[in-house]
Amino acid sequence: MLNLLNQHRTVRKYTDKTISTELLNQLLEAACRTSNTGNMQAYSIVVTTDETIKKELAPAHFNQPMITQAQIVLTFCADFNRVTKWCEQRKADPGFDNFQSFISSTIDTLLAAQTFCVAAENAGLGICYLGTTTYNAQEIISALKLPKLVVPITTITVGYPDGIPEQTDRLLLKSVVHYETYSEFSCEVIDELYAEKENSEFYKQFIAENKKETLAQVFTDIRYTRKNNEFFSDKFLLALKKQGFLK
Amino acid sequence: MLNLLNQHRTVRKYTDKTISTELLNQLLEAACRTSNTGNMQAYSIVVTTDETIKKELAPAHFNQPMITQAQIVLTFCADFNRVTKWCEQRKADPGFDNFQSFISSTIDTLLAAQTFCVAAENAGLGICYLGTTTYNAQEIISALKLPKLVVPITTITVGYPDGIPEQTDRLLLKSVVHYETYSEFSCEVIDELYAEKENSEFYKQFIAENKKETLAQVFTDIRYTRKNNEFFSDKFLLALKKQGFLK
Repeated sequence: MLNLLNQHRTVRKYTDKTISTELLNQLLEAACRTSNTGNMQAYSIVVTTDETIKKELAPAHFNQPMITQAQIVLTFCADFNRVTKWCEQRKADPGFDNFQSFISSTIDTLLAAQTFCVAAENAGLGICYLGTTTYNAQEIISALKLPKLVVPITTITVGYPDGIPEQTDRLLLKSVVHYETYSEFSCEVIDELYAEKENSEFYKQFIAENKKETLAQVFTDIRYTRKNNEFFSDKFLLALKKQGFLK
Repeated sequence: MLNLLNQHRTVRKYTDKTISTELLNQLLEAACRTSNTGNMQAYSIVVTTDETIKKELAPAHFNQPMITQAQIVLTFCADFNRVTKWCEQRKADPGFDNFQSFISSTIDTLLAAQTFCVAAENAGLGICYLGTTTYNAQEIISALKLPKLVVPITTITVGYPDGIPEQTDRLLLKSVVHYETYSEFSCEVIDELYAEKENSEFYKQFIAENKKETLAQVFTDIRYTRKNNEFFSDKFLLALKKQGFLK
């Protein structure tokens, strides 16, 4: 198991081999066993295989080719719609149209998504998470006809891997793990934590290709600019409001 | 693997057996291999074993006994502090003090948390997620000395299980899974999805103990009331603002 988890790679290219309905159901069943808030299971998983709907989803994911190439696209959604409907039918007054309910259902959604991915990889499948989901939530809501109190949080494309991609690097464990309480980073420690990444030939080339002076600038000036982050913040907050989660 | 995932239970009681540092590091390493946004690893994991700090954390978790009984308490945090510090030291202008960055780091945090849990269970450990983390984020921020751009998202207590708890029920898969696009639920379908739960002796007793007429009322009137959800929404949004994520 540790070996499987440590061998994780994001897989963006898939063969034509079909994922059986039986396997898909097994993976979904396993995902649904994951811990969740109060056992309300306040999430939903939209399984899209239809070419037309995948093409409708594609622009929301900036036309990344995995969306149309993968046999299966899974959109994992924070979902208090079902619970709310159930309460309304049972003489109960549901109060889930607020930010805390959004966060708890987001937590449930993501834990289930990751269980799905671990199970999928164990079955020989490759997965790719699409972070574009919260950038263009409104477009995904339209394409998948998500009702109020349902918001897409992450998307996974799934298929049998066409080749094994290189594994990406990770920071030293001490970049992420703190003991007892949080240890603030000195300048020297930051230098140490990022040294291996910054000294690698791969990233040196990456910086040059992006015509930047430092690796950090590729992130702040090209990949995750302040302007875009702020634009997509407003856009996502608007989607949350429209879906009824910011009463 | 599927068997392991399908056997998942929340474990709230632990034996005195110690989790070795070697095992803990293996689990943390595996968690850090999880997919994350742009490979920025915008999360942190605070490992707390000190009795004094656990006692400080306990009230934030409404004194649930796992916090002080478990050998290890892990607080998983959305964290753009390290990335921001790195950018500032590298002539780059970080723009991660916004809601979209909060959401992407929250996604990274939760995926890593679930990988940790799957690996931990595979190693014979038991885990319990504490949803109280986002209720009382500010108190946890104080206890763990979390700097700006760090917000606790979930907490896991870990230990060797003292007994195997009953497994909780799950809704039928079709309660959660939608094909192609979202299928809105009719009243009849809601009745069908909740029938097994509502007809079980366990829940009938649970409703009676809570002096309610329906199971849904236990959720709306006792466990997750509108009033509390709204109170904790405001409180968490205030914590996000204080930590600098709602510019």
